[in-house]
Amino acid sequence: MMGSDMSSFLPQSIRSAIDAFAKLPGVGPKSAQRLAMHLLHSPDSHAQSLAGAVSNLKKGLQFCQTCWNIAEDTVCQLCANPLRNKRQICVVEEILDVIALEKTFEFKGVYHVLHGALSPVDGIGPEQLKIQALVNRVQSSVGENAIPGDEMLLEVILATNPGLEGESTALYLMKLLKPFEVNVTRIARGIPVGGDLDYADELTLTRALQGRVEYS
Amino acid sequence: MMGSDMSSFLPQSIRSAIDAFAKLPGVGPKSAQRLAMHLLHSPDSHAQSLAGAVSNLKKGLQFCQTCWNIAEDTVCQLCANPLRNKRQICVVEEILDVIALEKTFEFKGVYHVLHGALSPVDGIGPEQLKIQALVNRVQSSVGENAIPGDEMLLEVILATNPGLEGESTALYLMKLLKPFEVNVTRIARGIPVGGDLDYADELTLTRALQGRVEYS
Repeated sequence: MMGSDMSSFLPQSIRSAIDAFAKLPGVGPKSAQRLAMHLLHSPDSHAQSLAGAVSNLKKGLQFCQTCWNIAEDTVCQLCANPLRNKRQICVVEEILDVIALEKTFEFKGVYHVLHGALSPVDGIGPEQLKIQALVNRVQSSVGENAIPGDEMLLEVILATNPGLEGESTALYLMKLLKPFEVNVTRIARGIPVGGDLDYADELTLTRALQGRVEYS
Repeated sequence: MMGSDMSSFLPQSIRSAIDAFAKLPGVGPKSAQRLAMHLLHSPDSHAQSLAGAVSNLKKGLQFCQTCWNIAEDTVCQLCANPLRNKRQICVVEEILDVIALEKTFEFKGVYHVLHGALSPVDGIGPEQLKIQALVNRVQSSVGENAIPGDEMLLEVILATNPGLEGESTALYLMKLLKPFEVNVTRIARGIPVGGDLDYADELTLTRALQGRVEYS
């Protein structure tokens, strides 16, 4: 976008780096220039270690065949961890959401990564997401289908984003999971901590009122 | 910073990429995660082309021995261009400033990149910048010292940033260049186009008043 016109005086290698950075999400042409200049002024080892990390990023990686989190094996570190509570599955849209939830230290169960949310406009239906995998997983962990020895699944927490797509995905999943003997819950929507009622939109306020809890 | 604690469930290669991205200026831990996840979900060729561009960034590069812009040769493309007016030198702090000025298509002269601004607090004095190189360059291009055949230097435009450090650098350069038969000018400081008087700080307003021009 910033283009070859104005910066054609720059050496080709710098222009290539700027172009490559500018292709990353959230990196505009100006930031891309800054990043390239930063590396230009840094020791070469910095650039090489970044290049190496980027190049090796996907090496030997696969998706966990249980929860579809990223893994070095067929089972990810969270699913393989015997200390995680297999009776609770938290359903999220992205791996980034797993990272965010892990940071709270609040959830000790396991996850299920959908890899997106339902969005008919973008052509994303249930088949494009790991929804059937979730249904199969729930089906084989409840009632008489539960594999003997495994802990029986008690709760599925729907933690998709509280936007239009995340809400419809949650609603869709809720209906799908209804037939099974499992408690399906939805994360609370409301005013964020430190937030301001004044600035909250009507929908958030409505949700905050509907979701009110006994003051203890 | 986001650390090994919360994301220790992620494969090592992803954590390395997140750490490498987070070391870049303006990329926080959250953005670093996003960038890594973006590459994870992109075709491997994207990651490889970024890695290649970063790795090759500095290959075969040097600074122009005339203006200290980045170059593939001892002379940069701007200095080597016979269409550029050698009678005007625009002095800037960084290569990024050259890119910014080139985008205006307003300046047809040549540049001099100082590689910083005077900042005693950070231990940056005249010796750390390409100031002596500028003085030598001016000295050899004016009056009887001008190399025969070369165009004689007429103007040095001081285009350092209008902040504390840029202003002191400009002031310092102005005093240094006074002895030479050359016109030393400073870029205009004032209200940015599209800006709002209301939001401008006192110093900018003062400069805008002082620098007012005849309305034609």
